[in-house]
Amino acid sequence: METYKELSSILTSIKLNRPLIHHITNYVTVNDCANITLALGGSPIMADDPREVEEIVSRASALVLNTGTLNERRIESYIVGGKRANELGIPVVLDPVGVGVSKLRNRTIEKILKEVQVSVLRGNLSEIKNICGYKSPIKGVDSMEDSLDRSKEIALNLSKDLKCVVAITGKVDVVSKGKGSFYIENGVEILTRITGSGCMTTSLIGLCVSVSMDPLYGTILALMIMGISGEKAMGRLRKSEGTGSFRTYLMDEVSNFSMEDIEKRGKIYEIK
Amino acid sequence: METYKELSSILTSIKLNRPLIHHITNYVTVNDCANITLALGGSPIMADDPREVEEIVSRASALVLNTGTLNERRIESYIVGGKRANELGIPVVLDPVGVGVSKLRNRTIEKILKEVQVSVLRGNLSEIKNICGYKSPIKGVDSMEDSLDRSKEIALNLSKDLKCVVAITGKVDVVSKGKGSFYIENGVEILTRITGSGCMTTSLIGLCVSVSMDPLYGTILALMIMGISGEKAMGRLRKSEGTGSFRTYLMDEVSNFSMEDIEKRGKIYEIK
Amino acid sequence: METYKELSSILTSIKLNRPLIHHITNYVTVNDCANITLALGGSPIMADDPREVEEIVSRASALVLNTGTLNERRIESYIVGGKRANELGIPVVLDPVGVGVSKLRNRTIEKILKEVQVSVLRGNLSEIKNICGYKSPIKGVDSMEDSLDRSKEIALNLSKDLKCVVAITGKVDVVSKGKGSFYIENGVEILTRITGSGCMTTSLIGLCVSVSMDPLYGTILALMIMGISGEKAMGRLRKSEGTGSFRTYLMDEVSNFSMEDIEKRGKIYEIK
Repeated sequence: METYKELSSILTSIKLNRPLIHHITNYVTVNDCANITLALGGSPIMADDPREVEEIVSRASALVLNTGTLNERRIESYIVGGKRANELGIPVVLDPVGVGVSKLRNRTIEKILKEVQVSVLRGNLSEIKNICGYKSPIKGVDSMEDSLDRSKEIALNLSKDLKCVVAITGKVDVVSKGKGSFYIENGVEILTRITGSGCMTTSLIGLCVSVSMDPLYGTILALMIMGISGEKAMGRLRKSEGTGSFRTYLMDEVSNFSMEDIEKRGKIYEIK
Repeated sequence: METYKELSSILTSIKLNRPLIHHITNYVTVNDCANITLALGGSPIMADDPREVEEIVSRASALVLNTGTLNERRIESYIVGGKRANELGIPVVLDPVGVGVSKLRNRTIEKILKEVQVSVLRGNLSEIKNICGYKSPIKGVDSMEDSLDRSKEIALNLSKDLKCVVAITGKVDVVSKGKGSFYIENGVEILTRITGSGCMTTSLIGLCVSVSMDPLYGTILALMIMGISGEKAMGRLRKSEGTGSFRTYLMDEVSNFSMEDIEKRGKIYEIK
Repeated sequence: METYKELSSILTSIKLNRPLIHHITNYVTVNDCANITLALGGSPIMADDPREVEEIVSRASALVLNTGTLNERRIESYIVGGKRANELGIPVVLDPVGVGVSKLRNRTIEKILKEVQVSVLRGNLSEIKNICGYKSPIKGVDSMEDSLDRSKEIALNLSKDLKCVVAITGKVDVVSKGKGSFYIENGVEILTRITGSGCMTTSLIGLCVSVSMDPLYGTILALMIMGISGEKAMGRLRKSEGTGSFRTYLMDEVSNFSMEDIEKRGKIYEIK
């Protein structure tokens, strides 16, 4: 009940304030990230030249760092932008896309986590395990399945280490902060068959934590919005339709999302 | 009546000649810009390496400069490409995305306007006011509302200063050139809830001025196409649909656009 | 019959193995390329920093090089990534986007073809003629029509020269390898009115050759998937719909593609 009120106030605040979310992100899914931020009621701005990121982050309500298609310019900007956000108390959300696929990504993400205090870290299980230093086979952006309990353990430990919310997204999403953890069971398999599901989820987290008192609630709300919107989009899909129509419907559902959807469909469980 | 003939001949000429429109643009909405150029009948080419922009602009019928996600490479290319276009008499259309959000953007846009003669400048009210040197609070890509009269004043003065057409897009679009101004009242609010509305409008302007005798008519036609296509797309939107479907329908409508749409729905007023 | 079995086994293998396809590509259509790779059952990864391409290509099952919006960073990565793929025996597919529009593109594509052994080269007729050194007027991404016989001659000769499969896509697609050639007559005109048709076709080629014994069959399958999916998407298009809906339906059809579609609609002819 308390949680519900919290989530509701976040959603209301987004619609009211249209918070500006600064993204330093990849060029594969950047259009999807901008559109999903707008769909829920936020205002996206993408900028990655190190000469302007400090000024831009200072106007923003959250900073999203996404390490897909990283390059020299963006690597510099992650750090410059992240540090400035920390100085100003603006939440930073990190999506360590592809950590484990190259030394450059590993070094970059290590550097970010060392020099910037992030509020939320979101990845799939492989990515999060890679950050923990577990050896896990990584293949593209997919994650291997493990037991849910094990995921929770990993999220919880990393959350304590990094002093931030850790979200592992997959068939069931796991969100941990300090002592508590939540499982969110919303979502559909077809989300893995379009590009940008993960990146868009991270954008929604950025948007939700930008107006939430506790990044834990912002993260939970964002994951539920993505999962439930996926379910509703899937429900509209006719037999002749496929991943193209699904993408369109997903954006529709996020743009029409309301707390009623959470009441009706939310599947969240607190784990002691 | 004269105007209608003018607009009609532009549209016919686009379909006939498929003019090549060179874009030096941001990576957020670049796909939308390419698709909308194709949808109306043009041929887009995107290239931003300073080593090739001169050759490419020399094959093109118009050059679109868009300052979203600018960086060192693109900043150099704006100038190199813009100067070459001027030498060859190819119209240049400038979309000063985000002017006011950073010194880098301000400096870049100032430099473009100093070194390149643009044919059309299109922005929202905040952006245009920033260029005029008015202090106006800017937040992302949104514009603050002012009185329409005031907008016209601003557009008219800037148009004289820069010797180009100035278009301020918003709830009502204002287009000024030298002495005359027009208001265009087509459009729908939902256009502000998808990314790239502004950028796509600018691409359409580039396409329309590439074959118009007077850039004023090309600009007016492009704004009417975007506004009317938005209205028609909105008209097709069912209750369960949202911004995802709207985007698809918008592209549909531009690809099916004809002069009949202007006859039926055009709302343009000349202001003395 | 033999061919049908071959194509069927490629499609099955894609669904089973979800091969990772590394793209070094342009930022205009990159999202479409990622989505179409996922739609057919593959796993895309996009990376273009020369410091990580070798590691990433070594995890991949094919490498796609696309020269749209090329720049210094990507030019270096084409070579570094391509050479590494050759060492490891990973097939390389080249899409020489815009060859002929600038000296930079010509030089780059020449360099790739000199230093990297490609498995498949795909372009429109203008692009392929440019590579052959024929002078042909190029305008954006369009191709001039020639006689089909002439196209076959060109593809066949280039195929021998470069020791790779050459595919010329257009109203009728021509595929040549060494001595044999095929015509594929699937496809619809509206594919030329959306951006990325060519790039997406090349991504599908990358995906199909990643699991095919002979790149010839992978190329043929990819072209048929694109052509037939285009036809089916067009068949679903209602009168009020246009290029926006077509794009969505195209992706739908690729995501639902099966060998039955080839049985029912495939139009392929072997030319002696």
